[in-house]
Amino acid sequence: MTKKIGIIGATGYTGSELLRILLAHPAVQISAVAARSDVGNTVSSIFPHLRGYLNVPFVSPDDESLFDCDVIFFATPHGVAMKSVAAFLDKGIKVIDLSADFRLKNINTFQQWYGLTHSAPKLLAEAVYGLPEIHREEIKKARLVANPGCHATAIQIGFKPLLENNLITTSLIADSKSGVSGAGRGAKIDNLFAEMGESFKAYSASGHRHTPEIEQELSYLVNTSVSLTFVPHLVPMIRGIEATLYAPLKTNKDIYPYFIETYADEPFIDVMEKGAHPDTRSVKGTNMIRIGVHQPKDKSMAIITVVEDNLVKGAAGQAIQCMNLMLGIPETAGLTQIALMP
Amino acid sequence: MTKKIGIIGATGYTGSELLRILLAHPAVQISAVAARSDVGNTVSSIFPHLRGYLNVPFVSPDDESLFDCDVIFFATPHGVAMKSVAAFLDKGIKVIDLSADFRLKNINTFQQWYGLTHSAPKLLAEAVYGLPEIHREEIKKARLVANPGCHATAIQIGFKPLLENNLITTSLIADSKSGVSGAGRGAKIDNLFAEMGESFKAYSASGHRHTPEIEQELSYLVNTSVSLTFVPHLVPMIRGIEATLYAPLKTNKDIYPYFIETYADEPFIDVMEKGAHPDTRSVKGTNMIRIGVHQPKDKSMAIITVVEDNLVKGAAGQAIQCMNLMLGIPETAGLTQIALMP
Amino acid sequence: MTKKIGIIGATGYTGSELLRILLAHPAVQISAVAARSDVGNTVSSIFPHLRGYLNVPFVSPDDESLFDCDVIFFATPHGVAMKSVAAFLDKGIKVIDLSADFRLKNINTFQQWYGLTHSAPKLLAEAVYGLPEIHREEIKKARLVANPGCHATAIQIGFKPLLENNLITTSLIADSKSGVSGAGRGAKIDNLFAEMGESFKAYSASGHRHTPEIEQELSYLVNTSVSLTFVPHLVPMIRGIEATLYAPLKTNKDIYPYFIETYADEPFIDVMEKGAHPDTRSVKGTNMIRIGVHQPKDKSMAIITVVEDNLVKGAAGQAIQCMNLMLGIPETAGLTQIALMP
Amino acid sequence: MTKKIGIIGATGYTGSELLRILLAHPAVQISAVAARSDVGNTVSSIFPHLRGYLNVPFVSPDDESLFDCDVIFFATPHGVAMKSVAAFLDKGIKVIDLSADFRLKNINTFQQWYGLTHSAPKLLAEAVYGLPEIHREEIKKARLVANPGCHATAIQIGFKPLLENNLITTSLIADSKSGVSGAGRGAKIDNLFAEMGESFKAYSASGHRHTPEIEQELSYLVNTSVSLTFVPHLVPMIRGIEATLYAPLKTNKDIYPYFIETYADEPFIDVMEKGAHPDTRSVKGTNMIRIGVHQPKDKSMAIITVVEDNLVKGAAGQAIQCMNLMLGIPETAGLTQIALMP
Repeated sequence: MTKKIGIIGATGYTGSELLRILLAHPAVQISAVAARSDVGNTVSSIFPHLRGYLNVPFVSPDDESLFDCDVIFFATPHGVAMKSVAAFLDKGIKVIDLSADFRLKNINTFQQWYGLTHSAPKLLAEAVYGLPEIHREEIKKARLVANPGCHATAIQIGFKPLLENNLITTSLIADSKSGVSGAGRGAKIDNLFAEMGESFKAYSASGHRHTPEIEQELSYLVNTSVSLTFVPHLVPMIRGIEATLYAPLKTNKDIYPYFIETYADEPFIDVMEKGAHPDTRSVKGTNMIRIGVHQPKDKSMAIITVVEDNLVKGAAGQAIQCMNLMLGIPETAGLTQIALMP
Repeated sequence: MTKKIGIIGATGYTGSELLRILLAHPAVQISAVAARSDVGNTVSSIFPHLRGYLNVPFVSPDDESLFDCDVIFFATPHGVAMKSVAAFLDKGIKVIDLSADFRLKNINTFQQWYGLTHSAPKLLAEAVYGLPEIHREEIKKARLVANPGCHATAIQIGFKPLLENNLITTSLIADSKSGVSGAGRGAKIDNLFAEMGESFKAYSASGHRHTPEIEQELSYLVNTSVSLTFVPHLVPMIRGIEATLYAPLKTNKDIYPYFIETYADEPFIDVMEKGAHPDTRSVKGTNMIRIGVHQPKDKSMAIITVVEDNLVKGAAGQAIQCMNLMLGIPETAGLTQIALMP
Repeated sequence: MTKKIGIIGATGYTGSELLRILLAHPAVQISAVAARSDVGNTVSSIFPHLRGYLNVPFVSPDDESLFDCDVIFFATPHGVAMKSVAAFLDKGIKVIDLSADFRLKNINTFQQWYGLTHSAPKLLAEAVYGLPEIHREEIKKARLVANPGCHATAIQIGFKPLLENNLITTSLIADSKSGVSGAGRGAKIDNLFAEMGESFKAYSASGHRHTPEIEQELSYLVNTSVSLTFVPHLVPMIRGIEATLYAPLKTNKDIYPYFIETYADEPFIDVMEKGAHPDTRSVKGTNMIRIGVHQPKDKSMAIITVVEDNLVKGAAGQAIQCMNLMLGIPETAGLTQIALMP
Repeated sequence: MTKKIGIIGATGYTGSELLRILLAHPAVQISAVAARSDVGNTVSSIFPHLRGYLNVPFVSPDDESLFDCDVIFFATPHGVAMKSVAAFLDKGIKVIDLSADFRLKNINTFQQWYGLTHSAPKLLAEAVYGLPEIHREEIKKARLVANPGCHATAIQIGFKPLLENNLITTSLIADSKSGVSGAGRGAKIDNLFAEMGESFKAYSASGHRHTPEIEQELSYLVNTSVSLTFVPHLVPMIRGIEATLYAPLKTNKDIYPYFIETYADEPFIDVMEKGAHPDTRSVKGTNMIRIGVHQPKDKSMAIITVVEDNLVKGAAGQAIQCMNLMLGIPETAGLTQIALMP
């Protein structure tokens, strides 16, 4: 039976991406689309690409129709979901939060990086981190899923085979690059075309919010404290993340087979031929991650290059992958689109 | 029953776009993919975005497997299809040619603009011009379809309601702008990123091959000679065409209702609200055309803005729309994808 | 002797472009830089590319230092300059206004298009329209110059040889395309990289503010009423304007020599070889205009393609060209930079 | 007295950039421009942005006029200069080679990475590595300068203060990103707009030609063997390099003052305020390098972000800086242009 879906905060890029994917999903229907700023406007007046697909109006985030759904996605700014999810969970509605509200298990760390006191610590304890390649079984049983950050997804997928097989030390470097859609749809001078175009820069090199999230999860993976140096960068393109990962190896044997083995059965992870360089366009609009494995010179350093679409596997697609697991439908349902190339 | 499809010339952008759309089409399967330059290489080695979807090798353009197909697409340079289609038609295989070989009914005009003597004038006479919004019934019965040019599609769709309703003179102007993928996947300095990026220019302002094609078809539409001034331009983006059309009106009444009426039942034509400005991204990756209708100042001039994805409605998508009609399957099959925005 | 220059409204793109050019100008020095929003901040904290060239703070728009200047540039939003220029003129300071405040001679037309009552009608009557290729002698004597709009500059330069030589009718079409910097440095969602990138659209097709400005000036040129259909478009690039102009010819003789003759002595107008297609990058960062002249088929239609850098010849560069004329220094001083290619 | 300059291989991007800068240089004149592929064509027919500045024809690389010059620049593919420079040096003409022919002191390493037997080992021994911030005094006396690679320049400048002050180990990581002009003006499918646009990737992660060059020079700096892990990436923009450098610190004291001190007197190195993130556009078209210094968390890791214009400080500008030193004219002559922003 078709499941009813509600989306809260649908005027941003992760929200509109949820709409795009869910509208073509074979097992769900969009029942309510909420956006505080645009109540009453039709969704397609904001997003002309949806003309003919979704001509419903935005409702208020507390509209009754949302409580008639089976699953609610929060695509809201940090700090919104933690105040609102309980009401849905209490009615038996599953919730997937695409913000950071339920990612960091330590509320002090959350407060430090997001400047907010956490208002739902019990739910935080219950929330499952929504990276299926690591937490698949827990996600299946979850009521509340915290969808991972975009850089965080690529970096964890890249380090997992090396960490789990005890091939590297726990002092890691991730140099990650994101398209501009990762900075959101807010009206900011810094994100204007004339500011971002034909330029490239690092940001938050002295400390970024995703660092504690990634460290938490990588540490969980190997049950020991992992330290990460993480520098994000902005690329003058709309979609895509490429993370280049560096880790000194404890061994100089070939690390490639570990990647093949780890991801042999994963539908959304493509380990390319040894020495390949995946480009972000090869996953544009898709839920795929592609991985390149390199071990140059004396084979003492692992260099892993990971690409994803920041709005799909880095946000909306991964959230829908989690939804599929939570609803007991095929994990790949609605997520098999081929990349738009060129 | 699933139909078997062959593609000849699949290493260019229209070829790869045929692959992308057909791989997700519910009623067909790709049986043979030919490319003279890459025989033996796997398709996904050239197009990594198809990894996991199509791991077959390219075959030669005269490979037997092509003759086991129900439909053959030619995505080859001008001059190839005219020499090869007869062999397929003789075996009862339908052919859709995406090159210009069968577009111009006058072989002298063809020779003048393409510098080639036409080698199949009888087939040229038989070929149907593959613009379903104008030639739907003929396409259904056709063995051989000549798929329209990309600019030509947008411009004809924009002028049709005005011409058919006798609202304009027959002296028309089309200022059209195309993304760079329209220039093809050939290794040319002019099309390098560092040459095309951050720049804009007109080309062929003194005469372009699409002009006689468009004039032929617009003249057919109103059964009188139509003269077109057509200037194409190159936009520093990958996909998309926007055509701004200018025509002095014979009337100053409201032209908008004619657009609504003409395209009321067309699944791939969206006449936007009066005075709207469609952007190319709203149709990216889709077979849609969106139209804006303007009548400024004293209402004596029609200004029509038309957008399409040059690789979809302007090439591969339209070809598949024709294929659907030729095979008697739903016209929209495989062509309902939502635009990738942003 | 070095002249002292003040700039009011220097945080936008025309303001920063004035700074860039004036800092390298041999005969002037920047004495005061005003910006209401950033008083006290150093200019280079907003514009890191000026580090080492200009480490002064922004002052208030009514700061005394401005009144010690020889020339003041207003790079402010429409409606600011008309209230402020009198105070400078009264002290013998020359003023060049880059906004629209002094462009439209008819105050009703101004009010209709800009929604503002004009507060300085006498100065409006006195102001000289700052297009040196048409008003050079008046500019030399002016106290107050209204710097032309960016599209307006390209379109007037393109039509001038045809109008002055009575080669065309007075019913003209200008299809103009601008880079995104033309939309300014304001924080607007529409101008985000993720909104503008990889897309193209027309805007204001039903009527744009530059139309009356261009019609006024073209009518002045031939002393009869000229009617213009003008549609601007947005190109996913930062700088550059390309205008493609269409005009039915009264003659079918060769129009090219008229362009050569008209602009033979103009230092900033390059009439390219017949049939050439100038690209915007060939003038990037420079005060040049390049022109392509086309007369296709039966030679009954003139097609003129004009390129300029919207921030230089379309704004700051032209303003400095006017300043040079007003100060009696060589017209090309400070404006000889070669385009940055690629 | 004005010096005469010849350029061999002027149809590529480094060649055209030499032309752009030298044409505005106060102390030199361009006497001969050679390009084997375009003998007889005017330079401005290939490079319209030079119309009005340089209307001379290309000559053959062995044209007599080249031997009448004071300085010759080779902007040729690897392997050309090593066969040709002796003839110029013998006549007392100074040579600056922008290819890799004279960068690697070890001819076996050269042969390994470039696949060529070195034909001028004695000149190789004599050649000075043209990075003025490290080899200024030698460059002043040199007859033959090997201009550094683009990535190599940024990376050496970034590591120098840390290495010289013994603050870091000798196991270094450089994650570098370059605009597409770095890939040259050759007609290659990989570098088409439709291939490079809206995408990002690493390349040569398993080993790149610049690695031995950088290791050689960094080792020279500290007189001990330095090992570098270097991964270059391609950014969808035309110009610019950003290198993010990672080095574990031997100390946790503040490293910022060492950068300030090292580069206090360097005209082309701008150490920004502590914690800043330079963007590539802030140096576009200029010979500047800007540096950001970061020391996150427990201060045990140095993160240095370095930006340059790959065609200027990474190629033509640096070569001209060397020329100035070799000719005894001010080091900054012709190199003071402000960045084109936006």
